[in-house]
Amino acid sequence: MRFHEFSFRARYGETDQMGVVYHGNYAQYLEMGRVEWLRTLGISYRDMEENGTMLPVIHLQIDYKKSAKYDDMLTIRTMLKKRPLVKIEFDYEIYNESRELLVEANTVLAFIDVATGKPVKCPDYILEKLKD
Amino acid sequence: MRFHEFSFRARYGETDQMGVVYHGNYAQYLEMGRVEWLRTLGISYRDMEENGTMLPVIHLQIDYKKSAKYDDMLTIRTMLKKRPLVKIEFDYEIYNESRELLVEANTVLAFIDVATGKPVKCPDYILEKLKD
Amino acid sequence: MRFHEFSFRARYGETDQMGVVYHGNYAQYLEMGRVEWLRTLGISYRDMEENGTMLPVIHLQIDYKKSAKYDDMLTIRTMLKKRPLVKIEFDYEIYNESRELLVEANTVLAFIDVATGKPVKCPDYILEKLKD
Amino acid sequence: MRFHEFSFRARYGETDQMGVVYHGNYAQYLEMGRVEWLRTLGISYRDMEENGTMLPVIHLQIDYKKSAKYDDMLTIRTMLKKRPLVKIEFDYEIYNESRELLVEANTVLAFIDVATGKPVKCPDYILEKLKD
Repeated sequence: MRFHEFSFRARYGETDQMGVVYHGNYAQYLEMGRVEWLRTLGISYRDMEENGTMLPVIHLQIDYKKSAKYDDMLTIRTMLKKRPLVKIEFDYEIYNESRELLVEANTVLAFIDVATGKPVKCPDYILEKLKD
Repeated sequence: MRFHEFSFRARYGETDQMGVVYHGNYAQYLEMGRVEWLRTLGISYRDMEENGTMLPVIHLQIDYKKSAKYDDMLTIRTMLKKRPLVKIEFDYEIYNESRELLVEANTVLAFIDVATGKPVKCPDYILEKLKD
Repeated sequence: MRFHEFSFRARYGETDQMGVVYHGNYAQYLEMGRVEWLRTLGISYRDMEENGTMLPVIHLQIDYKKSAKYDDMLTIRTMLKKRPLVKIEFDYEIYNESRELLVEANTVLAFIDVATGKPVKCPDYILEKLKD
Repeated sequence: MRFHEFSFRARYGETDQMGVVYHGNYAQYLEMGRVEWLRTLGISYRDMEENGTMLPVIHLQIDYKKSAKYDDMLTIRTMLKKRPLVKIEFDYEIYNESRELLVEANTVLAFIDVATGKPVKCPDYILEKLKD
């Protein structure tokens, strides 16, 4: 299960006066992509954070190829780049309904202990799930 | 010091495809208005929250008269409605550079103890400041 | 078909440092509610705007009863208040998975001709759909 | 005038439940940085767009070093990377009040004719301003 697809509609409030989705709003789309990827593995990011490990984004990169429009049904494809250690890296692609590629993106997130604020290793129960 | 004015520019990312500021973004404008009103009184909302009292919004009402456009220099006028007890109520007006009234709004916020999640009275040091 | 329910998850980026969904983000939730209500009637708001009628919000009112948390599966219930003329009015309720009422809200929107910026009557094809 | 600094406060609505500014909101900060840089040169991005040239972001990269907190007075330093042709590239640094470096970022934007949607060269009046 190294990739996952999730679909959602672009909201009116996410557009800007160019008549397309504001480029900054894609960060939330990527967040939905990786959270739903985790959920498919049986992992709740919410539980993970409540259990003391958080995953702040430390690197974000987005290349915009084509615009998303209001009410477009978008599909985000989330791909784990490699087995996580103290960081976890994802590649993303976002498509519209005509399967045109709108965006290519990459994020790196760090596993951080909520209590200490220090980097930690990827929890074992996540590594276990990734074996499958 | 029952009212206060604060100015700021509308951001591109705050517009929507109607070519005006998205109506939902005014909630952040009102938040800036009351925070800057507090700062003028010598009160930091950040310190207040760190000291154990938070102020969630429990009622929000906005009437939209005229649109704000990208890059407009907007002025928000924040007015304390009455002496706060367990709640604090503000009226707001937002103007553009031509002093046209764009928005009339009202919010009610509750004083809540961060530790217990229970309602509390307005802290004395705020009531003191309001005497002046 | 005077009411409609639609469900979606609260995003991480929609929370604030109180650990709950930021109150200003509910405006987008209400927008999703009424757009999906229209879609159920066979009406696309996107098409409507492309065909020359837009629906800016002129009044927004929200009462916050209980907080929504990150990753909560929220359900918005959208109810048409009365037969629209030059304005259309909706009531909303938002529930969490335990069917606790989080928010009660109301919006009034005006039918506006995109070309002239002037108020117009609710298009006939919408009134037709509302008869059913 | 190849770089410019602009300061503003982080808003409450920009934080997330980690208690820091949500990583996606920095896109708006970068936008403010380059718009204010242009204004210092005597160029209004709003006028530029009204005169038929828009500047969509085609590449966004952000490295997060340290978190910004609510109410922090942030300073964004915007630097033009090279003389623009059909694209314009900026580097950015964001600092807090203690002059700690929070974020390093880079954006590439394309000059696009609003009417045709086609790429165009950087308008001459901007190149003129950059000579100074």
